[in-house]
Amino acid sequence: MDLRSPMASMASDLLRYGARHDGGYWNTTGASRFVLVNEILPRMRADGCRTFVHGCVGGGNDQRRFARYGAQVAPEMSVVEPWTSPRALERFPDRAAMLAAVTEHGLRLDQGSGADRSTDANLAGISHESAELEDLETPVTRLRPRWSRWPQETSAEPETVTVVFHEGRVADVNGSGPDPVEWMARANEIGSRHGVWLRDVVERRIIGTVCRGVYEAPGLELLERAWTRVLQAGLDAAGRELYDRLAGVLGAALYEARWLDPAAYAARDAIDRLVGEIGGSVTLSVHRGVVRVERMKVASDVVQQTRFGSGGNRWSEIVAV
Amino acid sequence: MDLRSPMASMASDLLRYGARHDGGYWNTTGASRFVLVNEILPRMRADGCRTFVHGCVGGGNDQRRFARYGAQVAPEMSVVEPWTSPRALERFPDRAAMLAAVTEHGLRLDQGSGADRSTDANLAGISHESAELEDLETPVTRLRPRWSRWPQETSAEPETVTVVFHEGRVADVNGSGPDPVEWMARANEIGSRHGVWLRDVVERRIIGTVCRGVYEAPGLELLERAWTRVLQAGLDAAGRELYDRLAGVLGAALYEARWLDPAAYAARDAIDRLVGEIGGSVTLSVHRGVVRVERMKVASDVVQQTRFGSGGNRWSEIVAV
Amino acid sequence: MDLRSPMASMASDLLRYGARHDGGYWNTTGASRFVLVNEILPRMRADGCRTFVHGCVGGGNDQRRFARYGAQVAPEMSVVEPWTSPRALERFPDRAAMLAAVTEHGLRLDQGSGADRSTDANLAGISHESAELEDLETPVTRLRPRWSRWPQETSAEPETVTVVFHEGRVADVNGSGPDPVEWMARANEIGSRHGVWLRDVVERRIIGTVCRGVYEAPGLELLERAWTRVLQAGLDAAGRELYDRLAGVLGAALYEARWLDPAAYAARDAIDRLVGEIGGSVTLSVHRGVVRVERMKVASDVVQQTRFGSGGNRWSEIVAV
Amino acid sequence: MDLRSPMASMASDLLRYGARHDGGYWNTTGASRFVLVNEILPRMRADGCRTFVHGCVGGGNDQRRFARYGAQVAPEMSVVEPWTSPRALERFPDRAAMLAAVTEHGLRLDQGSGADRSTDANLAGISHESAELEDLETPVTRLRPRWSRWPQETSAEPETVTVVFHEGRVADVNGSGPDPVEWMARANEIGSRHGVWLRDVVERRIIGTVCRGVYEAPGLELLERAWTRVLQAGLDAAGRELYDRLAGVLGAALYEARWLDPAAYAARDAIDRLVGEIGGSVTLSVHRGVVRVERMKVASDVVQQTRFGSGGNRWSEIVAV
Repeated sequence: MDLRSPMASMASDLLRYGARHDGGYWNTTGASRFVLVNEILPRMRADGCRTFVHGCVGGGNDQRRFARYGAQVAPEMSVVEPWTSPRALERFPDRAAMLAAVTEHGLRLDQGSGADRSTDANLAGISHESAELEDLETPVTRLRPRWSRWPQETSAEPETVTVVFHEGRVADVNGSGPDPVEWMARANEIGSRHGVWLRDVVERRIIGTVCRGVYEAPGLELLERAWTRVLQAGLDAAGRELYDRLAGVLGAALYEARWLDPAAYAARDAIDRLVGEIGGSVTLSVHRGVVRVERMKVASDVVQQTRFGSGGNRWSEIVAV
Repeated sequence: MDLRSPMASMASDLLRYGARHDGGYWNTTGASRFVLVNEILPRMRADGCRTFVHGCVGGGNDQRRFARYGAQVAPEMSVVEPWTSPRALERFPDRAAMLAAVTEHGLRLDQGSGADRSTDANLAGISHESAELEDLETPVTRLRPRWSRWPQETSAEPETVTVVFHEGRVADVNGSGPDPVEWMARANEIGSRHGVWLRDVVERRIIGTVCRGVYEAPGLELLERAWTRVLQAGLDAAGRELYDRLAGVLGAALYEARWLDPAAYAARDAIDRLVGEIGGSVTLSVHRGVVRVERMKVASDVVQQTRFGSGGNRWSEIVAV
Repeated sequence: MDLRSPMASMASDLLRYGARHDGGYWNTTGASRFVLVNEILPRMRADGCRTFVHGCVGGGNDQRRFARYGAQVAPEMSVVEPWTSPRALERFPDRAAMLAAVTEHGLRLDQGSGADRSTDANLAGISHESAELEDLETPVTRLRPRWSRWPQETSAEPETVTVVFHEGRVADVNGSGPDPVEWMARANEIGSRHGVWLRDVVERRIIGTVCRGVYEAPGLELLERAWTRVLQAGLDAAGRELYDRLAGVLGAALYEARWLDPAAYAARDAIDRLVGEIGGSVTLSVHRGVVRVERMKVASDVVQQTRFGSGGNRWSEIVAV
Repeated sequence: MDLRSPMASMASDLLRYGARHDGGYWNTTGASRFVLVNEILPRMRADGCRTFVHGCVGGGNDQRRFARYGAQVAPEMSVVEPWTSPRALERFPDRAAMLAAVTEHGLRLDQGSGADRSTDANLAGISHESAELEDLETPVTRLRPRWSRWPQETSAEPETVTVVFHEGRVADVNGSGPDPVEWMARANEIGSRHGVWLRDVVERRIIGTVCRGVYEAPGLELLERAWTRVLQAGLDAAGRELYDRLAGVLGAALYEARWLDPAAYAARDAIDRLVGEIGGSVTLSVHRGVVRVERMKVASDVVQQTRFGSGGNRWSEIVAV
């Protein structure tokens, strides 16, 4: 099933709504859970399916995400989660027992999925967790990036990227045109080439443990620098403060699988109003892991300061605000 | 007057309290205003001075900062601000009239202080504003960094830095020892060598204009990466959320010259409690403008996740939170 | 000019958006400034007026409110504020000089407007400030309410009121029907009869002084109890938290005359989404200044708890959230 | 075991830290859970006990509160919760089975504890839940208050109360003296006599159900009116905003049994700084459920507004803030 188009639309939403998680990383894995359920369940229903079975292990984030979205997208379908069922757990107490059963039934298993690491990839990004990285004393460079590379391994030549925004959404990335699949791919390609990707985050999980995750999102990281500049130039101070608060609400909503809850709809409506008419063209310089805003052309009305340009430092009377 | 020591202590506070301003930059210029008033006025008072005169132009941030801190640090001294006095403004309507008066009285003037740019430097960082940079279409690279350099002009070799934190403060940077003047200088030196410094921010000022400022704070930027990792490992989720909120309160307080207000004292007390016992040793890799946390040794009690390390993905029952 | 209808619509908005100010009072005076400018200026423009003159004294809230709304509602009209003009201030340095000039020109003056108190009234409420009440040691009962009365002077008989909400707005108050002018009048009448009105608030103004204001809003106070119950029953926890935050944003926006700013539009859009489909019928008991929710009939879907009703305290297994 | 003194100290903390829950009620039941565990476990440990057994039913707030506080106050003691143990649940599937077992073993049972309601009382307040009140259409007046009475049943005569605050704590209530047990009893007695008590709140629980609870806290409700006035007069605007935020953090911490978590300690430290030196004497009028601030004498330094008192409405120039 090709879900690149809805995943690209979701990436466009992530950027527009600033839905980053704790520590500022793009929680592309959480986002993909929504896309998967939202796209697959209607097709299953159309095929006459009445039950939604998924293999997430109990107690994890993903298990809750599939459960919540499933109940919202297809409330009439029942959800079966083998790894929270006492009977299944009795039959397969651990991974070894499961592997034995797979072999016993002559089934094929992807040998790559060892138990010591977990990688999740989609058009918007990749997340990595592993036994080795769990230890905070492990150098992060033990990780081999999948799309991108470490900055010191990248090209010696800087590259210039122009990102155009129109009505609060990306309209073009270096000639990609406005289709999110196209500009997302273009941004990923440029970002990867120059080692723009790393978010190495240590999170305190709700249950109190510390967990290190590494996130590759070269395209979104690159676009975020440009989008932030558009927000800086296009929103007034109160608008920016509200945007930041609501973006925080939406980042948490995505993590907790509350993207379809009333508060998330409301937060998106508010941001639609704030950014629905802003735009501009931002020129970035990308080089060895660094994305720098070089300059921008503002599309919306902005009163630019001309403190110096107007002939020197103003020596004026106090102006009451 | 050598104020490096109080300025270094202030830099240590900026880091501990996360007091960054809108857009995340280190408002080292605002911080220095507090240090200046807090250090100079007591000495002036001791010398018998009764009046505090400063030359800030009317309506600007600095004029309000000197006025507020002056009133708090030495309430019995009167403040004279020539550039908000109607008589002074009548006599010197613009910069040209002032220059003429200076020449006329045979006084010497620092030729460097042209009207088209404003730079402010101290041990913690440098801020740049100028007529040229005001225009958002001007490439930011027109700016010549003062301490640092552009990443592409830096050394080809990465460098490793170890930052040790003890009781919520920097205790060592690559052997500097715990004196803030020493570790601040060391961090600035390393950061500058590798082009770690840039914050190019477009702010919407209260009066509604858009203003671009560029901030060099190579040492604080470098230390911030390490400190953030210590916070990630040392605080629980609720503690981190409260830290972030209070850091926002303190960042705004510093900008608005409210560092000595009751809310700022209260916010610092709360953060003192949160971070007063956390520490650890963080190893950074610094290269061409990128600071990466390589690994860390945690000093405080932390329950590290051993999801993979404990023998595979847990297939366990749901654990109620 | 009869502005009861737009003022009643504004009161309906105040309730829907929870736009109360610091301390929880209904800032009906601030709200009326928006209504006045928003209604009068278009009529002035239609009559060919090019200048908007108002008599607010300098430095006060109202002066800024008229200025801001004037610039937004009719940006092409110029604003003249005699009491901030140096020439006018020279001519009339104080109230006595103004009174002399009025008499001198044979003009009539409303004798009621003494200098020792300030009252502002509209369909939504009344605000009182005065020289006597300024002193925090003055008993608040020195004030004579204008619409309402002190609870001990009210009828001995409780009264029952039923407020119906539909799609997030008042649809009826004891048979008033859905016209805001009608239900606002009905609510004011009932609230006044039973002494429901008082908000005696001491505010710290921005300039640092302490100021006591007393607010009569019998109708809005009464309706607020019912609306809060509808919100409690109709919103989920995250929705309620977001509502409360945005209501705070809008309360401040109204005080600061930012009701037409982008952040205020955005906050209203979000609340429209949250409350646009909630409703119900709330029965209140009103007596001697106390409004109590007796019971409610919920219109929206609500999962009511049946902890006891379902046959006793549940002795069930932990349910993971 | 007489825990009135620690419970009164806790009530003093509730007031000082503004730790009210969603909807503004005093969560005295949650507060008492902390006091119980904090007082009883050290005595148990001193007696050589190694296990802490409590009878809370599974999945409820109290079960989690006892578990969390138990782990913090006496981490070395093990906790046994029969109603979450599969074996106990098999043996006693419902309340009837439990009652049968009690009778069978010839044990005595408090006949008052029927399954259709739940009341919890301590020095600070009482909470009521019941099968009847669960239904939002049930008139709240079906409830018989336990300490207090409905306003219409109270004395016809208003009463005056003077509450003195010193260093951010109650120092006296109508001559009670500074012992919290004494002033808490005095405030409860006066509040009860005049029907000051009701908080009828409908909460959306996390699990999505709607639940109505009724809270009697006559003393704390009365004191809160006085304390709010002291805060209004004693804190500046930024201090008040921070106080309100932190009070919200602490109200949630109390509900969720996080009173001993680092964020709660930090929030209390900040409020200690804000209110540690404020005080004053507030005179309340109490009558038929209404508590009104009549006047106050401020102890701390306050710049009172003298807008009218200074000889009329100021006609002055704009003063920049």
